Order: sequence, then structure tokens, then C-alpha cells
Amino acid sequence: MRTPATQFLSALQSHLSVSPNNHTPTTMKLLYPTSLALDISSIEGFPTLTLHPYDVKTPIPEDLIDAEILITWTNSASNLKDAAGRMKNLRWIQSLAAGPNDVINAGFDTSRIAVTTGSGLHDRTVAEHALGLLLNACRRFYEMRDYQLQGKWPGHLGGPQPDRPAGSFTTLRDARVLIWGFGNIAKSLAPHLVALGSTVRGVARRQGVRDGIEVYGEDKLPELLPQTDALVMILPGDPSTKHALNAARLALMPKHAWIVNVGRGTSVDEDALFNALTEGTIGGAALDVFEVEPLPRESKLWKAPNCIVSPHAAGGRPQGSEALIVDNLRRFLAGQQLRNAI
Amino acid sequence: MRTPATQFLSALQSHLSVSPNNHTPTTMKLLYPTSLALDISSIEGFPTLTLHPYDVKTPIPEDLIDAEILITWTNSASNLKDAAGRMKNLRWIQSLAAGPNDVINAGFDTSRIAVTTGSGLHDRTVAEHALGLLLNACRRFYEMRDYQLQGKWPGHLGGPQPDRPAGSFTTLRDARVLIWGFGNIAKSLAPHLVALGSTVRGVARRQGVRDGIEVYGEDKLPELLPQTDALVMILPGDPSTKHALNAARLALMPKHAWIVNVGRGTSVDEDALFNALTEGTIGGAALDVFEVEPLPRESKLWKAPNCIVSPHAAGGRPQGSEALIVDNLRRFLAGQQLRNAI
Repeated sequence: MRTPATQFLSALQSHLSVSPNNHTPTTMKLLYPTSLALDISSIEGFPTLTLHPYDVKTPIPEDLIDAEILITWTNSASNLKDAAGRMKNLRWIQSLAAGPNDVINAGFDTSRIAVTTGSGLHDRTVAEHALGLLLNACRRFYEMRDYQLQGKWPGHLGGPQPDRPAGSFTTLRDARVLIWGFGNIAKSLAPHLVALGSTVRGVARRQGVRDGIEVYGEDKLPELLPQTDALVMILPGDPSTKHALNAARLALMPKHAWIVNVGRGTSVDEDALFNALTEGTIGGAALDVFEVEPLPRESKLWKAPNCIVSPHAAGGRPQGSEALIVDNLRRFLAGQQLRNAI
Repeated sequence: MRTPATQFLSALQSHLSVSPNNHTPTTMKLLYPTSLALDISSIEGFPTLTLHPYDVKTPIPEDLIDAEILITWTNSASNLKDAAGRMKNLRWIQSLAAGPNDVINAGFDTSRIAVTTGSGLHDRTVAEHALGLLLNACRRFYEMRDYQLQGKWPGHLGGPQPDRPAGSFTTLRDARVLIWGFGNIAKSLAPHLVALGSTVRGVARRQGVRDGIEVYGEDKLPELLPQTDALVMILPGDPSTKHALNAARLALMPKHAWIVNVGRGTSVDEDALFNALTEGTIGGAALDVFEVEPLPRESKLWKAPNCIVSPHAAGGRPQGSEALIVDNLRRFLAGQQLRNAI
């Protein structure tokens, strides 16, 4: 967690000092991607700024290569790598993705270029998908579909049935839901679960109460996992979260408990998960992310019992990008700390 | 809508008047079903009442046939028909089902026997299922499952995608959801939809604002249906709702709109729905109820495009039965209007 604002302020000031006179600062170029529908009129109005569309899959054109600000969304690796080598005036990259991995991996000089993420732009869509996966799991829509495709009525899933039987995950009402990785997405998800009657707790690096939800440190996982009907994982994809859910932790969970992963695939040891699913020591898994995406054809997860494969569909449609860009533009020009700085 | 309480009061008083003296009324028998787990201790405490378990699939035993009160849940048709003929002292039937159809069809003399339903006991479970079906529809979990079973990654459903594109139903955020049949279940469902960002409106016989939702009369359907992304049907199964959603009304809906039915199957003209699905004049249908259940093997709905078959699984687990029984017991003994009287 660097705090790059002061670096940029001085960099920006030295940049502006080359303007022809003190009253007319040099204009700056902002490049925005054509890979999503941005309302550009909502970004206009900064007198020293010109706005330029660019294609995220091809090299930045020569006439735009001197841009100071780059907005990224689904850029190709080659586009970013090329930009990292050629954009000598670049001062700030605003990614609209939730995480900065693609920008970091491209080799930009982050000692002089600020990088900010689109954290917050995906909260509602990812939370909605996570809620859907939880309902898919407990209401067993995936199993109903399997029967439907065979033209068979799954009578055991319908009709009169016990209400909230112990040792099962059949409803979100009174379900104990543990959210591991308690950031903005979790804050967006939790109220829906509470409204449906779930008991929601969180796990994060820092403990505390957030938006009314008790969030525990990871050291409490041995106590929390055995009391969990559904574990929602929303961990980022950095090395520290690699295989956070491993065989030992899976073994702590009740046999009926479900895993929902809408964070990053690397946070789950897929071999250990497959074994738990196959041996029936876990209730099921609804996965939107995988260690390798697309999930390889040879993956055992496709056919694992009670495993739901969702094709990284939770997010992918940033909401409110313009407001984040404008807020950060104002901060950038004012020399203030940027939002979502990595 | 009869108001049977006054009838029972006099019936009850004449019944009590045969007690040996004025201070010790005759006891009454209440029969409760063993087809669900009731907390009987929560019903105890009425001095003149004895509580007796009974099997809902076989005839009532001779020693219980003089019972005054019958609680029903998933009784067989033969059990009810037999009871209707033999239970000469019966004064009140409390069904735990949402609707009274099975009791009515059994031939009980409802001129002297009060019938009350379990309306309200299924609100939260049915609302949860309806929410799940809506998310299944807009997040296309059923289509993901079809791909998964073939070991294929449905790339078109994941990754970067347009946010809330016009003419589609991809999220509940900003979706226009119309709930047709706006009773307790709708009141339980609507807040979840509002919290997810939907614009919710209702249709019912009586118009008005209910729990903050604008509910229109059925005469407004021609205006409302064209402005609907998802139609949730929660209509009861009486003759007046037969084929309420017919070809003409389906034709008023946008091509991308979905139908979710968690009410009764008879309210949808299944042939008209099949045609709309096949011709692509409707987005899809997620059905928990059908004109004939289980859905016959020869039904065309099994394989209709974008049709989700759920096996009448929304409810089936009454919640809070004991409190309803106790409230109605007290009212019955006090000669007051019963709750959920038909």
C-alpha cells in the first residue's frame, strides 16, 4: 500500500511548469477505452484536459502516446506491455477492474505512475451473483436442471419437506453464512442475507464490526468453519491468498456446508476441493472463479458432485465508472490522495 | 368469504352446555398431524382441550373420530373424504397449506365446519424460491448448467459484458418486476427486489399502495405488461384465475421478459406459454407450478427454450404453524373471528 499522491503532485507540478506561461497550463491527455460504454460527457469540464478514445487490444497510436492519464478496461496483455514501454509521460492509470493484476504484470513503472483500481464498481453485480449462487445451492436449482434435461420430475426436491432440518443447507433463513474477505462486495452482499434471515459473520485480516457485521481475524477460522453452513469467499488474487481454502480448512467444515467463490480462483485448492466433494465431506461448491480460466476441459470439477461451474460471470460490468474517474481526476489535479490507490 | 365465527360461537356454546356442570366444561379433542414436526408443547395450556396425534394417510381411528378440531397437512384425499363422512362433531379445520382446495374437495360440510388456511406460513419460503428463480433467470444459471454438463465453458455468459443493456433481463438492478397476485408472499418478496435495485409494481383485484408498493387493478395489465422485464405470478388456484396469463397477455410483454410462476399452475395457459417460448416472443419462464403435477412426461415444457422446471418446491414447509394454531384456538374458544377463514 503505497501513497503515491505526493509523488504525483510534485511530478504534476514539474510537468505543468513547462507550460508556456503561468496562466495557461499545458493541456493533458486522458485516454479512455472503447471496450465499454462510458458516458464521456460526464467526464468533461476539466479545462486542462483533453479526452481521447482508444482501442484496448491494439498498440496506443503515436499521436496519443504522450498521454498522462490512461483508463483501462479489458486491455490485452500486449496493449499494456506496449504502453508500459512507450508511454513516457504517463502519470496515472485508472483501471476499472476490481484488481490491478493486469496492470502490474505489464511492467509499468509504479514508482512514478499511480495505479488506481475499480474497487467498488463491481460490488452490486458480484453481490447479486453471489446471492444467486447461494440460492442455486440451497434450493438445488442445478440438480433440478439435471432432472429436467432428462424429462424427469425431481419429486425429492419438491412437495412437503422438513423445515430447516439440522445438518443441511436448504434455505438462507437461519443459515450461518461466513464471508471470507470482507470488503465492499461483502458489505453489499451481507444486508441481503440478513434480510433473508441468515446469520452473517465475516473473516478478514483486520477484525472489527463493519456495517453491523462481526468480522473476525483469520486466526478464528478454526472456530468459525465448523459453525458454517455456507462459506462465501471474496478474497483477492495475491500470493498471500493462494490456496487459503485448503484440505485442512475444508476438513473443519460440516459435511453439508457449501463453498461459494466469487473472489479469485487461486484462493481455493481445487484438488482438495474436488476430493472433499467426491468424498462427500463437503455439501457442495458454487464457483465463479478458478485457478485457470476458462476452466480446462480436463478439470475434474466439471463433473464433481454438487459442483456448480459459473464462467467468471459475477462482475465484468463496472457500474459508476464515470463518477470514480471524475473524483480521481479532481484529486489528481488537486494533488490529493487518489481513491483505490494500490 | 363467509364469516363463520358467530356460527361456531353458538355451536360451541350449545356443545359446552352439555357439560356436567357450569364450572367444568366438557373437554374437546384437537387432532394434529404427524406429517410435520410440530412443537406440541407450544399448543398446550388450554384447560378444556386434549391434543392427539394422527396419521394423515389413513382413516381417523374410532377413538378420535369425535374430535372437534382437525389440523391438516398433506392429508391424503381418502383420509379427508373419510373424515368428512365420519367426524360428526367436527367444528373447525385448520389447514396448514396456503390454500383450502384439498379440504374443500373432500366434502366437509362448511356450513357448520369452519375452515382456515395456512396463509402466511409459506411467505418466506415461497418468496425465497421466487427470488432464486428470478436470479436463475437473469444470471442464466440454467444455461450455465447445460454447458457444464457438456464440459463446456459458456464464455458468452461470463467475462466483460454490457451493463444493464436495454431490451434484456440480465440483472435485478433496475429491472421492472411486476408481481401479479399481491398478497402476503408478494409483501415478503418485494423488499428483497427493491433492495437489489428493482422497480417493483403489483397487480391485484384491489388496487392501492401495500407496504410501499403501488398495486394496480387487473384492468391496468395492458399498460403494465409492455413495461415488464419479469412477471412474478402468485395467483391462487381458483376458477377465476384459470389461464389468467393467456396468449393475448403474453403477446403484450417484451420479447426479453421472463415469467416466474410460484402461485398455481392453472393460472398460466401452458400451450400459449410454450408457443411464446418457442417463437421467442418471450424471454423465458421459470415455473414452480404446473397445470398438472408432477409435470407429465409428455409435456412440451421440459424441452422448451429458456424454460426452467422446478418441482413445486417453493413452499411445502410451513413456518410458524404453532403460533397460528394457538391464535386461532384462542379465537375459537372466545367465539371470535378466526384468522385465515375462507
